[in-house]
Amino acid sequence: MRRLKDDFHDLVIQLQEKILGQLKVYDSEGKITGDDWERKDFKGNEGGGGITRVFNGEVFESAGVNTSLVHGEVDPKFAEKLGSESTNLWACGISLIIHPKNSRVPTVHANFRMIELGDKCWFGGGADLTPYFPYEEDFVHFHKVWESALVPYGLYEKFKDECDKYFVNHHRGGEMRGIGGFFFDHFNTGDLRRDFDFVEDISSKFIESYFPIVERRFKEPWTEEDEDFQLHRRGRYVEFNLLHDRGTAFGLQSNGRTESILVSLPARCKFSYKYAPEKGTPHAKMMEYYKPIDWLSVEL
Amino acid sequence: MRRLKDDFHDLVIQLQEKILGQLKVYDSEGKITGDDWERKDFKGNEGGGGITRVFNGEVFESAGVNTSLVHGEVDPKFAEKLGSESTNLWACGISLIIHPKNSRVPTVHANFRMIELGDKCWFGGGADLTPYFPYEEDFVHFHKVWESALVPYGLYEKFKDECDKYFVNHHRGGEMRGIGGFFFDHFNTGDLRRDFDFVEDISSKFIESYFPIVERRFKEPWTEEDEDFQLHRRGRYVEFNLLHDRGTAFGLQSNGRTESILVSLPARCKFSYKYAPEKGTPHAKMMEYYKPIDWLSVEL
Repeated sequence: MRRLKDDFHDLVIQLQEKILGQLKVYDSEGKITGDDWERKDFKGNEGGGGITRVFNGEVFESAGVNTSLVHGEVDPKFAEKLGSESTNLWACGISLIIHPKNSRVPTVHANFRMIELGDKCWFGGGADLTPYFPYEEDFVHFHKVWESALVPYGLYEKFKDECDKYFVNHHRGGEMRGIGGFFFDHFNTGDLRRDFDFVEDISSKFIESYFPIVERRFKEPWTEEDEDFQLHRRGRYVEFNLLHDRGTAFGLQSNGRTESILVSLPARCKFSYKYAPEKGTPHAKMMEYYKPIDWLSVEL
Repeated sequence: MRRLKDDFHDLVIQLQEKILGQLKVYDSEGKITGDDWERKDFKGNEGGGGITRVFNGEVFESAGVNTSLVHGEVDPKFAEKLGSESTNLWACGISLIIHPKNSRVPTVHANFRMIELGDKCWFGGGADLTPYFPYEEDFVHFHKVWESALVPYGLYEKFKDECDKYFVNHHRGGEMRGIGGFFFDHFNTGDLRRDFDFVEDISSKFIESYFPIVERRFKEPWTEEDEDFQLHRRGRYVEFNLLHDRGTAFGLQSNGRTESILVSLPARCKFSYKYAPEKGTPHAKMMEYYKPIDWLSVEL
C-alpha cells in the first residue's frame, strides 16, 4: 500500500510538470508562480502539503495546476460525511483548471486523486470542458478522446453520465457548468493496483483531450460580445465552485490551503440580473449545450 | 398576528420605495428593472412571491432592493436546521445591496425580516458596510448612526458584536467582509408588537446611515489601483455570499427565486492568487480594517 501511494504521488507530480510544459508551449511569455506549502492536520500535527503552480499569461489568463499530499487527523464530522468512523486521512491528487483569455478557447478542469480514510481506499477524478462558443467539433473531440480512453474499461457511459449529473448548477434550474466530460468517485474494484493502472492510463490522455482545441482556436480573434458572454459564464463557474463543488468543500473543510483551492476561480467575471445572451447569437446557441448531450452521435 | 404580519409587509414595501427613490436622487439616469414574481412552496402550492428591483446606473453600478413575502411548506430537513418540527413557514423581508461604481463609495447591505415557523416567530436584520478606501470618518459615521438607533434599546454592543462575528470569511483566516455594522437574528422578546416597533424604528435609519457617505464621495475621482482593489474585494464579497451567508442559503433552500437572491453579487469582480495590495498604499491600510474595531472610540 505504501508503494502504491508513493507511485500515485509520483504520477501526479509528473503530470503536473507535463501540463505546465504544455501551457508554456502556447504561451511562452506566461509567468509561473506559486508555492510549495506545508499543512498541519486537524490536531495541529504535521500533515503533508502541496505544490501550487499558477500560470498567468496572454493565452491562458489564469490557470492553476496543483498537486497535494495531505495526511493526518480530520474532524470526526467531516469523516462521517465521507461515510467513515475513522478520522485518519491520507489523500493525494492533482487538480487543475485553465481559464484562457480568448473566449473562443474553452476553460478546462481536471482532477485525479487517491484517498484513504481508515480502512477504506478509493480513487476519483475526471475532466470536463466549459466552452463559450458553439464549436461543436471541439466538444466532439473532447468527448471522443475520453471515450477512447474509457471504453476499454467499459466505463465511458457510466462516467460520462456521472459528469453530466455532477457539474450542475441546481439553483439555476439544472443548467450544467459546461458540456461535461467524465467524472468518477469512490472507485475501488477490489484490486487497488489495477485501479491505479487505470487512473494512470486515463490521466495520460488529458493533454490530448484539450490542447488540440487550444491549437485550433488560440489565434482566433474574438469580439466584445464573446467576452461578455464568457465573463458571465465564468460567473456561473464561480457559483458552481462555491455552492456545489464537493472538491472545494472537501478542501476547505479538511484544513486545506485556501489560496490553492480557490485558484480555480477565474481572474475576472461578471454577474447580471437575469443575464441572457441575445437571441440568434452564437452565445444563445451555446446556452442550448449546457445540458446532457450525446456528443458522440452529433453529426458535424 | 395577522395584523402584525400585514403591517410588516407594508413596512418593507414602503422602505423599498424610499430606498429606490434615494438611488434616483444620486443617479437620475439609472435604470430600474426587475420583476414582480410568484412562488410555489415545497409541495407545489401557491406560496407568496416578491418584488425584485434592480438598479443599474453610473453612480450605482448595480443594486438590488428586494422585498418578498413567502409562505407554505418547507422541506422538513430545512425546518429542522432552523430548530422547528413544524414545516409551515411564513417569511417576509426586505434585502438590499448597493454596489457603487466609484471605489471611494462603499458597498452597503441591509436586511430586515420577520419569520414565523410553526409556533415560533422572530425578527432579524442588520446593516453592514464594505468600504474599499480608508476614509475612517465614513466608517465612524455609519457606526454612529446605528449606535444612536440601538442604544435606546440597549442593543448596540450586542448587535455590533454579532455583526462582527457574522460577516466573516472563515476560510480567509477570519477576515471580515467589510467593517461591520449590526446584525441580529431569532429576535423575540415575548412582545411581538414591541419587537415590530423596534424593527420599524431602526430600519428607518438606514438612509441616514449610508447616503450621507454617498453624498460626500460620489463625485471623487478614483484611480485604476482603487478599482483593482475594489474588484478583488468584491471577489471576497462573492466568496462570503456563496460560501457562508445564511440568507443566501435560506433563500436557495426554501425554493426561493435564484435571480432575486443572487442579485447581491457584484456586476464585476476579480480573483487573483494570493492577492494583496502593495505595501504603503491606502489599500494596504484598508486591509487592516476588515476586523472587529470599536469605531466609536476612533479619534479622527
